[in-house]
Amino acid sequence: MKQPVIALLTDFGLGDIYVGVMKGVIHSVNPDGHIVDITHSIPRQDVRAASYALLASVKFFPEGTIFVVVVDPGVGGGRAVLCAKTGGNLFLAPDNGILGPLLDRGGYEILVKVENENLYLKPVSSTFHGRDIFAPVAAHLSAGLDIRDLGPDTSEYVRGEIRRAEVSAKRVVAEVIWVDGFGNVVTSCEASVVRDVMSAWAGVAIEGGGGDRLPLVTSYDAVPPGELLAIVGSSGFLEISVREGSAAERLGLKAGDRVVLVEREAG
Amino acid sequence: MKQPVIALLTDFGLGDIYVGVMKGVIHSVNPDGHIVDITHSIPRQDVRAASYALLASVKFFPEGTIFVVVVDPGVGGGRAVLCAKTGGNLFLAPDNGILGPLLDRGGYEILVKVENENLYLKPVSSTFHGRDIFAPVAAHLSAGLDIRDLGPDTSEYVRGEIRRAEVSAKRVVAEVIWVDGFGNVVTSCEASVVRDVMSAWAGVAIEGGGGDRLPLVTSYDAVPPGELLAIVGSSGFLEISVREGSAAERLGLKAGDRVVLVEREAG
Amino acid sequence: MKQPVIALLTDFGLGDIYVGVMKGVIHSVNPDGHIVDITHSIPRQDVRAASYALLASVKFFPEGTIFVVVVDPGVGGGRAVLCAKTGGNLFLAPDNGILGPLLDRGGYEILVKVENENLYLKPVSSTFHGRDIFAPVAAHLSAGLDIRDLGPDTSEYVRGEIRRAEVSAKRVVAEVIWVDGFGNVVTSCEASVVRDVMSAWAGVAIEGGGGDRLPLVTSYDAVPPGELLAIVGSSGFLEISVREGSAAERLGLKAGDRVVLVEREAG
Repeated sequence: MKQPVIALLTDFGLGDIYVGVMKGVIHSVNPDGHIVDITHSIPRQDVRAASYALLASVKFFPEGTIFVVVVDPGVGGGRAVLCAKTGGNLFLAPDNGILGPLLDRGGYEILVKVENENLYLKPVSSTFHGRDIFAPVAAHLSAGLDIRDLGPDTSEYVRGEIRRAEVSAKRVVAEVIWVDGFGNVVTSCEASVVRDVMSAWAGVAIEGGGGDRLPLVTSYDAVPPGELLAIVGSSGFLEISVREGSAAERLGLKAGDRVVLVEREAG
Repeated sequence: MKQPVIALLTDFGLGDIYVGVMKGVIHSVNPDGHIVDITHSIPRQDVRAASYALLASVKFFPEGTIFVVVVDPGVGGGRAVLCAKTGGNLFLAPDNGILGPLLDRGGYEILVKVENENLYLKPVSSTFHGRDIFAPVAAHLSAGLDIRDLGPDTSEYVRGEIRRAEVSAKRVVAEVIWVDGFGNVVTSCEASVVRDVMSAWAGVAIEGGGGDRLPLVTSYDAVPPGELLAIVGSSGFLEISVREGSAAERLGLKAGDRVVLVEREAG
Repeated sequence: MKQPVIALLTDFGLGDIYVGVMKGVIHSVNPDGHIVDITHSIPRQDVRAASYALLASVKFFPEGTIFVVVVDPGVGGGRAVLCAKTGGNLFLAPDNGILGPLLDRGGYEILVKVENENLYLKPVSSTFHGRDIFAPVAAHLSAGLDIRDLGPDTSEYVRGEIRRAEVSAKRVVAEVIWVDGFGNVVTSCEASVVRDVMSAWAGVAIEGGGGDRLPLVTSYDAVPPGELLAIVGSSGFLEISVREGSAAERLGLKAGDRVVLVEREAG
């Protein structure tokens, strides 16, 4: 039987041995474990960024994938560990809001609190549950363990922090949820808002943005190099970009900032 | 049957989810896909650097490897996507010059324009062909699809930008094509030029380089720590190095700079 | 037969093609080679950091793992290449001290000098033994080659540089062996010293540290966010941390620095 993908998403970076050690543990439990890195560069302890990265990744992985998300400022404290089954996939994460946006949007089939200590690496450290809890539990799941064997059912989970954009006829209040390495600014304004609301506007501008018009395009080359644009990005959110440049630098925007998009008269 | 390696070379960095998502797509199409990262740190949108990295990597991969090179400033515009078969390997890249130096040097057996949209992820975004076109096409090839099924034959491709060094008896005009993380400066002067021309010189110096002699050596330890040297590097081009130091920093050189090597009298 | 893991630990970084090319070579020799990256971000040419990273990783990998450690300031010079069998694993590294701490602590079953040139990639460059020697030798081992086929037995190896902490009843002199990406400061003070000596102290402080008390805790959440603490970290050494912050920044500590821990009266 083909093994499912174990998809890792953390804020551990690649400068330390932490990710490598998690993989060692996974292979110790399940030598056939099939690991794929989503990214390990979530900003340190930024639960919201992890939520977004997860949301934007899920549908591109094969059904049956085991997503392991470890961004865990509360490690060693009292927070629970959750495992959810939804959309044919499994999701393992600390109960700190990472899974909130996913579960709020898609619901779940099964949700359990992970409490079966027989699966853990012993002794469990208080500082590295990625290695001692998440890695071995994921490996057991990948080898066929049933989610019900992890612990008791629950219906409680910490709600997440990606707020949907506030939408009115002429104004969309969103926030920056990610700035990528090219300087593209990903906002919380979803594609449906662009389609249903903004596409009817005469033009788009950023409130307080000095009057720059923001052409709403479907391809970077609709504007000359160096020009600002707005586009529904590859993960289904509105992005503000500069063709062959960095919008984040141009506009001074970073994750968490508020962005207000308003209609602007053509002309 | 053993699956071929899918070797990924991009400028996406590892700070975003882009590379992880490409891998998710590959495994969605071909669960047995065998992916190896060459690097994802090509300088953003630097087609020439990608050409060099590809040239320097090819011969170290097993025959049958599918090289997927995505450095794509023209994504979403009109540029074509090419797939070449040469030297027993397959090469998939945008037609923006990346494959030029490889095909100029080695020719090709088959060259096609990738146009078979049945293979693409739908809807195809205008901003992330790595995910929507390159990943699924590579996965289908790795699962056994014939290159002829990708699209029509062509003989046209954008020529690349790695210019061969200009060589005369006493002077070699080259350019910097890569600076590695150790500060080694890779020039466009090929090993054959060193062997046929420079090795006969009394000594090597950089024109305008303040008179520093550049010993042409075959091992770093031929000079004391901290000293400059010239050596045919591991990828077959002349490199300028400082033993246990950074030549790029010492000489203020970066990719794209011109470097003129001249004979210098022994003394 | 399930293949062993080949675990790579280098200072090559991920910004160049070096790691990718090593993987290409491994798969050229053994298409079924199963590679896991520990990290490639060892500080350039820092043999001691590599020793530590290796020590801290070994026990989390499955028995039979082939550890390949390439931090090699003496590449191309006269240093030997070693392969050790100990604790059920194989270790391949230049003889420059990397393996010293491991072999000093755990001894070895077999130790050989790697000299069987039939296994190397030809021609062997003088600058990239990771590609030309370490990768193909590791691949042959992973495919079943016996360690005795690599070269003659030896009992000599360069001693390493992780000095054990100097311990007296009221004072522990240690050094910083690693600073991780979260700013946690890993010291050379081993868990046994904390257990046998420091845990009896009324309190812990850093000598010359301005009087800050350093609570010895077993979980980050024993102190408020932003506060200093000392904890036996996940790799078995005493670490100095700031909860949800960077101790390295707060204290101005970096790898190689001396840290003196002293008893401090409660109150």
